[in-house]
Amino acid sequence: MPDSSQIISAADAKFPLFAGIDVGGTNIKVGLVDDLGRTVAYRSLPTEADRGPEDASERMADGLAQIIQQAGVEKNDVVQVGLATPGPLDLETGMLLTPGNLPDWWNFPIRDCVSKHCQLPVRYANDANAAAFGEHWSGAASGLHSMVLLTLGTGIGGGIVVGDTLIEGAYGCGSECGHILIDLNPNARRDSLDKAGSLEAYCGAYSVVNRASEAIEAGRKSSLTPMCAGRGITPLDVSNAAEAGDELAREVVMDTARYLALGIVTLIHTIDPSSVVLGGAMNFGGAGHPLGEEFLRCIRDEVRPRLLLSLQKVLKIEFAQLGSDAGYIGAAGLARLQFMQADNK
Amino acid sequence: MPDSSQIISAADAKFPLFAGIDVGGTNIKVGLVDDLGRTVAYRSLPTEADRGPEDASERMADGLAQIIQQAGVEKNDVVQVGLATPGPLDLETGMLLTPGNLPDWWNFPIRDCVSKHCQLPVRYANDANAAAFGEHWSGAASGLHSMVLLTLGTGIGGGIVVGDTLIEGAYGCGSECGHILIDLNPNARRDSLDKAGSLEAYCGAYSVVNRASEAIEAGRKSSLTPMCAGRGITPLDVSNAAEAGDELAREVVMDTARYLALGIVTLIHTIDPSSVVLGGAMNFGGAGHPLGEEFLRCIRDEVRPRLLLSLQKVLKIEFAQLGSDAGYIGAAGLARLQFMQADNK
Repeated sequence: MPDSSQIISAADAKFPLFAGIDVGGTNIKVGLVDDLGRTVAYRSLPTEADRGPEDASERMADGLAQIIQQAGVEKNDVVQVGLATPGPLDLETGMLLTPGNLPDWWNFPIRDCVSKHCQLPVRYANDANAAAFGEHWSGAASGLHSMVLLTLGTGIGGGIVVGDTLIEGAYGCGSECGHILIDLNPNARRDSLDKAGSLEAYCGAYSVVNRASEAIEAGRKSSLTPMCAGRGITPLDVSNAAEAGDELAREVVMDTARYLALGIVTLIHTIDPSSVVLGGAMNFGGAGHPLGEEFLRCIRDEVRPRLLLSLQKVLKIEFAQLGSDAGYIGAAGLARLQFMQADNK
Repeated sequence: MPDSSQIISAADAKFPLFAGIDVGGTNIKVGLVDDLGRTVAYRSLPTEADRGPEDASERMADGLAQIIQQAGVEKNDVVQVGLATPGPLDLETGMLLTPGNLPDWWNFPIRDCVSKHCQLPVRYANDANAAAFGEHWSGAASGLHSMVLLTLGTGIGGGIVVGDTLIEGAYGCGSECGHILIDLNPNARRDSLDKAGSLEAYCGAYSVVNRASEAIEAGRKSSLTPMCAGRGITPLDVSNAAEAGDELAREVVMDTARYLALGIVTLIHTIDPSSVVLGGAMNFGGAGHPLGEEFLRCIRDEVRPRLLLSLQKVLKIEFAQLGSDAGYIGAAGLARLQFMQADNK
């Protein structure tokens, strides 16, 4: 079953159909998506990254064939494939470059390999960008003029959509919102790439853990102290402790909201999107959860007074809606866009 | 004569033609621009803002009629008008809202008024956005995939172009790059809107002047001391003193470059543009001038090491090329785009 989206029957689908494939370090999601962004069939495969990208591409094609059969549609009903992988990647040549979580897949021509096995043209994209396109097509920002997606996790990813334009960049590095700078101090916190003052250095999972650990090591009392001394704190520990009322943990969560707010102010003044959408696993419970809602409220309260006056009253920051389905749905949406543009020529 | 662009004869022009009008606090520039972005005729009128926007709109139409005659073309050769004014403005209704330098023009339906007097459809835009579109169409970023323009002056303006998409925002506040945040310290410098830590608070003309004045008041020796004690320092004083070797003035200029670099790093990781273009009057001499070139070099040297590795080698930051012509040329370019899109429907 997909994460968030309902499956509609092929009889209710608007044709043609598009395949969306989202490659992660653990699973590969393959979905069949209709012309309105609704999932018709879905399958999750283990990535088994050590078997290599050629083997995985073959299994993606097999998975697609299976869900086509499962949905009871014809192979010809599927006109294009969208493929999303972690970056960095080269959009022009369709090469997967040096993804951190897929070490055996470096410098592989994945777009053409998947195209060969699926016997369909493939639109290739960065996974965070695809997720943004998915939320814009049929998720939290559906029907809106524009949106910025921030994905909160180990790193801070991003995706920016303005109309039909996905900001992928001149060199495939567009929407890398985790690398926004929010601190000019040369002694600012540093991120995994050793860059000082980036949004990721203040809001990524490591920063959450480090800020909690540093406070405990400096003598703050907290229910996190045993983890800090033992196996090490995780972001989920911080979330759970904050939920249980631990003061330090709450402070760390709300500081994360405050730092994130600074990056969001920058993004709003740069893009002026209809909505800012927060995705990713590090959402402190997310929508409908008391801590998640408080985290979101704190972000909004910190962002609003820093905005240009006319933007304060239209501020819209929401949690994402498609969960881990956003990637394959967005990849299918990008495939659809490419198909329509080719059709118009 | 226009500022930077050469005038071509109507015989060499590619038709149809587009009118571009750029309204400033002092002058209104009206240009006739061909299908390739080249100026065919040009006229600068005094704004005489106190006579009000209806009177000015009438004079814009008169000016356009005059340059049509001067160029020896027919009225029918001009198919659409582009109009640029300072913001804030409402693109949907074509209203000029509350521009700081045009107090008698507040809340005026300028798009439709200009359209009525010119008897042509009008594409309305923010002036910094229009300037960006101009530099992208036929200036410093001509032929490139995408660009970010930063205009350096009293405020820091911006314009972002990706392909044919100008980032104007869901609420007309896109590309407001002066409001990017670069300092999370609550005691950060404040800009003219009293917002702490914005790019404008560190790089706008007031900041340049204030940083010099503060240092002198704190006891630093400088050739700027008499101005500081008397009529007040101007950005041009700082530029001239830096050029003459004044140590404090040089420091202020290079610090401005360093602060600007932080905003540019954020913009590059957000948009990943083919080029970052620096326009506006506060360019310390600009292209070909020793201080201007050193300012630009300092920005590049500060930006490069902060970028994702793959972006370091393709870094491109340049001065703008169209000077004060960028606005009317860009407005004409936006008119052309709207004309072509309407034609395709």
